[in-house]
Amino acid sequence: MDKVRVIEVKQSVFADNNAEAERVRRQLKEDKTFLLNLMSSPGAGKTTTLVRTISDLKNEMNIGIMEADIDSTVDAQTVAEAGAKSIQIHTGGMCHLDAGMTEQGLIEIGAEDFDLVVLENVGNLVCPAEFDTGASKNVAILSVPEGHDKPLKYPLMFEVCHALIINKTDVLPYFDFDIEKVVEYAHMRNPMLKIFPVSAKTGEGFEEWENWLREQVSTWNEV
Amino acid sequence: MDKVRVIEVKQSVFADNNAEAERVRRQLKEDKTFLLNLMSSPGAGKTTTLVRTISDLKNEMNIGIMEADIDSTVDAQTVAEAGAKSIQIHTGGMCHLDAGMTEQGLIEIGAEDFDLVVLENVGNLVCPAEFDTGASKNVAILSVPEGHDKPLKYPLMFEVCHALIINKTDVLPYFDFDIEKVVEYAHMRNPMLKIFPVSAKTGEGFEEWENWLREQVSTWNEV
Repeated sequence: MDKVRVIEVKQSVFADNNAEAERVRRQLKEDKTFLLNLMSSPGAGKTTTLVRTISDLKNEMNIGIMEADIDSTVDAQTVAEAGAKSIQIHTGGMCHLDAGMTEQGLIEIGAEDFDLVVLENVGNLVCPAEFDTGASKNVAILSVPEGHDKPLKYPLMFEVCHALIINKTDVLPYFDFDIEKVVEYAHMRNPMLKIFPVSAKTGEGFEEWENWLREQVSTWNEV
Repeated sequence: MDKVRVIEVKQSVFADNNAEAERVRRQLKEDKTFLLNLMSSPGAGKTTTLVRTISDLKNEMNIGIMEADIDSTVDAQTVAEAGAKSIQIHTGGMCHLDAGMTEQGLIEIGAEDFDLVVLENVGNLVCPAEFDTGASKNVAILSVPEGHDKPLKYPLMFEVCHALIINKTDVLPYFDFDIEKVVEYAHMRNPMLKIFPVSAKTGEGFEEWENWLREQVSTWNEV
């Protein structure tokens, strides 16, 4: 296995993150590169979801993965094995990525060569929601063991996302998790939120999620 | 049920959080109040662990609970029902508590009336680890569904804690979670870390955890 390329991103020098994010987004649009910002708590299954998604879509589109992490290269190695080009972004203790940090990753990976770049953000349901990375769309993963009350407790994450993946549906029988309630609470925060219950372990529900993603990518990358 | 008291804490005015934390800790020592700072990812089971701990220890000591949350009063209501005096601290979007914010909570709850006050920090494995709250001891909860690689990916949390609760051992059969590995990784970060595998659902392992907590409280509160 190739050694994973690691870049240490510096805290952004841009005073206005929103303006910088818009600049990043315009460049992505020009390059016909869709950037997906994937966020969740630690251990919700971002990497496992990505591995399955890469495996299902890699023959249709060029996919690059930017794994953000405070430390370690565990995830970048895993997705590289699944067949996507990946880099590891180390945030030096930072709990989120902003647009400037994301741009450093996009330059390093060579974003213009890909149809889809996924930024796997730092595992954190709070801070990443506060910073526009310049992504085309934001997606959050909530896993069944975390509980259905999370949209009540971490409102901003559900407000800023375009889609919500509810992962680990295979363990629903072992947890007191009410899918109807989580859908209700999430839509209280964001009535437009698309919701996809899936199991990254078994593949259940991936067709709907991948159809949505496919459509987003092709709409974004249209001439 | 009584309405839960909610306080909105202001970001701390103290430039030097460590100095402020030491001041808070000295006051707690003087008041014979042990402050436990409980941290974890969202959904790892902080509240469920607390509910069982309160129920087991409430006849031996006076327990007060400060539930920090960005929004909602879900947890404060739950622990109030378990029989502990509780207040809800709203952080106004902040992803952690610092010593000044903690002190506002301690004053509001009347910390000097309790043997043990638990601060349930914001669900976040990153930021709370960066700020000394003035607590007597820090404890983190990692739950089985989150995966055994977390000490590799969120090092600071494991470095600053005195004990680690590994929760949801009842669902071990349904997850690819290696207890030996998590112990090895956690001790790489912090060789002194006490580790308690428990199930807050079934009560398995609580005797060891509660014995440790009991000893910490009585040592702290000795004349």
